[in-house]
Amino acid sequence: MTEVWRKAALELASTLTADAAERDLAGRLPVHEVGLLRESGLLPLLDTAGWAAANQATRIVSAADASIGHLLGYHYLQLWRTGLFGPRAASEPGWFWAGVSNPLDAALLLTPGDGGFTVEGTKTFATGAAVADRLVVSATRTDNGEKLTFVVDARADGITFPGEWDNIGQRLTASGAVRFEAVRIAQDDVLGAQPEDQSDPKVPRISLAAIGFQLMLAQVYVGLAFGALDAAAVYTRETARAWTLSDVDKATQDPYLLAGYGELVATARAAGFAVDAAVSALGEADERGFDLTPAERAEAAIAISSAKIVASRAAVETTSKVFEFTGARATATKYGFDRFWRNARTLTLHDPVTYKAREVGDHFLNAIPPCLSGYS
Amino acid sequence: MTEVWRKAALELASTLTADAAERDLAGRLPVHEVGLLRESGLLPLLDTAGWAAANQATRIVSAADASIGHLLGYHYLQLWRTGLFGPRAASEPGWFWAGVSNPLDAALLLTPGDGGFTVEGTKTFATGAAVADRLVVSATRTDNGEKLTFVVDARADGITFPGEWDNIGQRLTASGAVRFEAVRIAQDDVLGAQPEDQSDPKVPRISLAAIGFQLMLAQVYVGLAFGALDAAAVYTRETARAWTLSDVDKATQDPYLLAGYGELVATARAAGFAVDAAVSALGEADERGFDLTPAERAEAAIAISSAKIVASRAAVETTSKVFEFTGARATATKYGFDRFWRNARTLTLHDPVTYKAREVGDHFLNAIPPCLSGYS
Amino acid sequence: MTEVWRKAALELASTLTADAAERDLAGRLPVHEVGLLRESGLLPLLDTAGWAAANQATRIVSAADASIGHLLGYHYLQLWRTGLFGPRAASEPGWFWAGVSNPLDAALLLTPGDGGFTVEGTKTFATGAAVADRLVVSATRTDNGEKLTFVVDARADGITFPGEWDNIGQRLTASGAVRFEAVRIAQDDVLGAQPEDQSDPKVPRISLAAIGFQLMLAQVYVGLAFGALDAAAVYTRETARAWTLSDVDKATQDPYLLAGYGELVATARAAGFAVDAAVSALGEADERGFDLTPAERAEAAIAISSAKIVASRAAVETTSKVFEFTGARATATKYGFDRFWRNARTLTLHDPVTYKAREVGDHFLNAIPPCLSGYS
Amino acid sequence: MTEVWRKAALELASTLTADAAERDLAGRLPVHEVGLLRESGLLPLLDTAGWAAANQATRIVSAADASIGHLLGYHYLQLWRTGLFGPRAASEPGWFWAGVSNPLDAALLLTPGDGGFTVEGTKTFATGAAVADRLVVSATRTDNGEKLTFVVDARADGITFPGEWDNIGQRLTASGAVRFEAVRIAQDDVLGAQPEDQSDPKVPRISLAAIGFQLMLAQVYVGLAFGALDAAAVYTRETARAWTLSDVDKATQDPYLLAGYGELVATARAAGFAVDAAVSALGEADERGFDLTPAERAEAAIAISSAKIVASRAAVETTSKVFEFTGARATATKYGFDRFWRNARTLTLHDPVTYKAREVGDHFLNAIPPCLSGYS
Repeated sequence: MTEVWRKAALELASTLTADAAERDLAGRLPVHEVGLLRESGLLPLLDTAGWAAANQATRIVSAADASIGHLLGYHYLQLWRTGLFGPRAASEPGWFWAGVSNPLDAALLLTPGDGGFTVEGTKTFATGAAVADRLVVSATRTDNGEKLTFVVDARADGITFPGEWDNIGQRLTASGAVRFEAVRIAQDDVLGAQPEDQSDPKVPRISLAAIGFQLMLAQVYVGLAFGALDAAAVYTRETARAWTLSDVDKATQDPYLLAGYGELVATARAAGFAVDAAVSALGEADERGFDLTPAERAEAAIAISSAKIVASRAAVETTSKVFEFTGARATATKYGFDRFWRNARTLTLHDPVTYKAREVGDHFLNAIPPCLSGYS
Repeated sequence: MTEVWRKAALELASTLTADAAERDLAGRLPVHEVGLLRESGLLPLLDTAGWAAANQATRIVSAADASIGHLLGYHYLQLWRTGLFGPRAASEPGWFWAGVSNPLDAALLLTPGDGGFTVEGTKTFATGAAVADRLVVSATRTDNGEKLTFVVDARADGITFPGEWDNIGQRLTASGAVRFEAVRIAQDDVLGAQPEDQSDPKVPRISLAAIGFQLMLAQVYVGLAFGALDAAAVYTRETARAWTLSDVDKATQDPYLLAGYGELVATARAAGFAVDAAVSALGEADERGFDLTPAERAEAAIAISSAKIVASRAAVETTSKVFEFTGARATATKYGFDRFWRNARTLTLHDPVTYKAREVGDHFLNAIPPCLSGYS
Repeated sequence: MTEVWRKAALELASTLTADAAERDLAGRLPVHEVGLLRESGLLPLLDTAGWAAANQATRIVSAADASIGHLLGYHYLQLWRTGLFGPRAASEPGWFWAGVSNPLDAALLLTPGDGGFTVEGTKTFATGAAVADRLVVSATRTDNGEKLTFVVDARADGITFPGEWDNIGQRLTASGAVRFEAVRIAQDDVLGAQPEDQSDPKVPRISLAAIGFQLMLAQVYVGLAFGALDAAAVYTRETARAWTLSDVDKATQDPYLLAGYGELVATARAAGFAVDAAVSALGEADERGFDLTPAERAEAAIAISSAKIVASRAAVETTSKVFEFTGARATATKYGFDRFWRNARTLTLHDPVTYKAREVGDHFLNAIPPCLSGYS
Repeated sequence: MTEVWRKAALELASTLTADAAERDLAGRLPVHEVGLLRESGLLPLLDTAGWAAANQATRIVSAADASIGHLLGYHYLQLWRTGLFGPRAASEPGWFWAGVSNPLDAALLLTPGDGGFTVEGTKTFATGAAVADRLVVSATRTDNGEKLTFVVDARADGITFPGEWDNIGQRLTASGAVRFEAVRIAQDDVLGAQPEDQSDPKVPRISLAAIGFQLMLAQVYVGLAFGALDAAAVYTRETARAWTLSDVDKATQDPYLLAGYGELVATARAAGFAVDAAVSALGEADERGFDLTPAERAEAAIAISSAKIVASRAAVETTSKVFEFTGARATATKYGFDRFWRNARTLTLHDPVTYKAREVGDHFLNAIPPCLSGYS
């Protein structure tokens, strides 16, 4: 019997597939789509069905619409990471979570006062923030340099979303900037602080957040590879014609198409299994709580980085290669088949995958654990 | 001293580069761009500087704007192929040539009468026809099944361009359909007939047309690879930031970027040399006139197919990979860097490259020459 | 706590690694090595620790010596497949099993008589048979064409091993020919018959044997990839020098080596996870007994073929590429590092992996299950 | 009409092919083979037919036997490089030249005295020296640190060849060590000195030697790719069987084999054209004499490095991949088909190709010329 959440994810995927090409072209703020996420009942999945289910749902939705899968995966991740400091933040079933923490921008600044803080600053690449209910935010105290993570209502006074997100891929992720002007944060909304001392025993657990994002990205990559294969297969079956110089009557019998699909399917499956293993690895690391050791944290990080490498490669290669199985007429804009590659290409640039390879190599060759950073 | 035509091609390339991204996005009929081709003085190049120069100019323009390079290359090709039947058709310096001959559509029909013919029918993928001065057209006589090639004024009565070309790549090539309704063709405009008997000694020469198109496509692919590299390099130099986990200060010093560029540059150069060799091979075959033997024709065909295989691979790989040298911010729509991949992906689907590989393999392994077709 | 069998496998691997290069070069019949397998206590693992453990042990041993891993994996497989007809054949803890059933040779012939059969004929590629205790053999009845599988003592009268196995890879697998001359088979040693009617409900289960071999091959491929990585890493750490034009002091710090290792490690891990999933799939199919449906059998077959595709690619690529991490001096014959590639290249040719890709593609695109054959 | 030298090269290739597998296995000093080179009349080719012909001959011989092609190419290169200091050294038609200059070993030491020098020291990887007539040697003066290049009779007193060359590839290249003990060098045998000042106008020309070796390596790589293809094609045509699950009767009709061959042939051809272009580039640089500028030298170096990158990749990939076109039985040791990969893998490690890619990338991206070194 298929689980309820899987059925819900598949139904949402079906709904999203129907007009994915047009919605991608329009590139509007994903207000409508976040509404669909709310209606699907998938938002509380982390509480109702757990970590592995949330990951599977992310993959299923990503195959249909990688933007919305990305939003959903990050929603889970943001909520999940609130639990790294202590009890997970309370959420409403209809709340959509996003975050603000691009490590490459200057830090947001927290000024203490009135039993709380005031936050100021701007961050780019705040995926989903403009359409979120709650935000998980990282910022630095102006008085003592401490780096705090807190929760804030996304519609609180002083929060605005300047500019717009107009990129070639992941167009419906609302990944533009967010500005904080004199936004008030209550002390109670502070989840915790990043330990300053790297040898603090809490560090391994709290630093799981960074690799959680890496995992969710890999999850979307796998979804993208399967999504492109699924869309191409429908076209090959229903619309493509056998090549005039082939020896077959139907495109579906072409030996090169068959082996071509097989190669990509096998690659995508392997990437999926690698990501599944990384999901387990992070789940187990999470369960260790503050007992998590640096070595255990490193193992989980390497499992994730390894999976991300193969998933990234599979996504970029598959989304470009499938055009060879559909042919020239499938390049008509109305089909929008290029969105898979545009999404894959954009999202796989989140941080350079070569540095993930270096990280995995350094661990394998020299037993050096990944450094702790916003990306590892 | 740089040749006059090379200087003209580089100047046109520079002009086209300046607003290539916006023009690609707008996707209008390339009326303006054909005007630029006229002004550049490149249109009569086949007469003024010869075959190799026409090919080089095509590559240079393709690097800046693959649509316009495609139009230019096909212009040369169409004019060149009129000379396969006898003396090359007379052209005016300002004339832009295109053609109508998609082998996969039903044939246009020629009904003889009044000392000439009337042509009827519709063809798709008629690159450049909607903005051309003269068209080279293939059609089949209704009375005896003979396949004739003729020249017609692109603005003659009865010629219309229904529908529009709205595809993800090569958006400025006006590659939509052309319809002929009772269009009059004078006997003098008929260039010649396709010999029905494959053993006719004229066959090797007349069938050079098909492989000429293949060569021009490969030429555009090479242009695309270099165009993507050039555009990425400008961005890496001027805008990209060193990765935060790298050991370098500038993106231009990153060891992975350096080796990454080097790999792609070497690949693109090799593809370029292979296409150069194919240009020579076709040029030499052309010079043999009707003495060209089937074996010599096969050698030229294999040189072209081999070049097309590596150029196709280089174009698709390079245009996708260069994003890893520019980074996430370079996916902003305003840069339009995805146009290189969209162009490469679209144009490399013209006919399946795997069948070119089969052709080259069959020749290498079994000494079987490529069959004569619209694509080989 | 590490399982007993894992410790035994690791110890055997360590023993085999110590002189793997010399033993490979000598290329003798693996009598000594089968002795090591007996001493290791790994031979009865299918009974004592189960299917998944047997697979893991195969992988571990394959990393150290792919020939011996191959022998061990096939030993498990041969014994396991006796259970597809009914109860698994009884084995002694010290017995080493092998098989005789190359589908590409003419069938062995069984002539009934005296309450049993006489078997005649020759088969090539009978991996391990020459050093085995018991053989699982397939042959065809001369009277009714029935294809029977039976067990025979490998040292029974009339069994000889003509010629020798002298190939570039898997040199210690004793994969030469076996000849049967008037060998007696008792009726009790017959395990069962291949149903003639493909719609016989027993067919899905009995035909699992073919895909079991495919899985074991994939298992060895994964072992090979890790084995090459491990051996190269030892050399990089202990012997390799930093390249003179690099910016680093030690080879272990070279950015290209680090990323290069990382890429291959990630690929090998993903292949390993895909094979793990295939192990589970076949294990579950096995547990279904004769209730196994054709569709379920197809799912297991596709899981195995998919895994084999990525494992094959990983093995061939890794075993060739690692030389770039060790450098020119590591090509000295004494190191024997080429044995990994020679083993991978030889074993991945068992049957053409492209046809596995076609099979996976046909299933994905057209929902067509793999045909039943000696290879699928 | 085929040139005399080409005919001689093809004849020698044919002779070498006949027993290449056995000679590779035996791995003896190539005394016999250098004899064949002498008899072939190819040794004086640089004088009689020029630079391009010498390169073509090297490629042809390398396809048959990459060790002997390597010896021949280095012979030309050593003789050619004597002309970088002044007039080319005089050679006899039967003389075989080799060199001693591995940049990674400690320098040989030259002590002046008696109107000449005494040379002392040991160098490894002295390809061909043990079977040569004349050696081109680089060494450092003990009194003033000047680095001189000189010619010496390979059988002069005090020259010995300790140890042996026993590596997995290029087994017949006699690439072991050479020891100089009190070897006398006459002043007249000194060709010239490496300028100490990098801005010396002679530097660009004199430093051409290093990139000449790089080019010759690339030449052998291309030969290897074609050699593997040729050998595999003979086997596919004459011995291979159609795969049992294919739809064809003969292996030569298999669609995957045909396309597989085509891909590799196209790649090898492109690599060949790139190397041809590099041959021209170095030839033109040579003709510039001491007028050669650093920028011109850099262009030639980049042409060579680019060619080496694609040739290296083609050689390693092709020599491994062709086994998929021959099948499992072709792994029998007697065929020796693994020698192509062993040769390619060994020779492509001469210096790490990734650093060539970095060099090409640095030139493309940053307009930085390759540094002057023993490898660039």
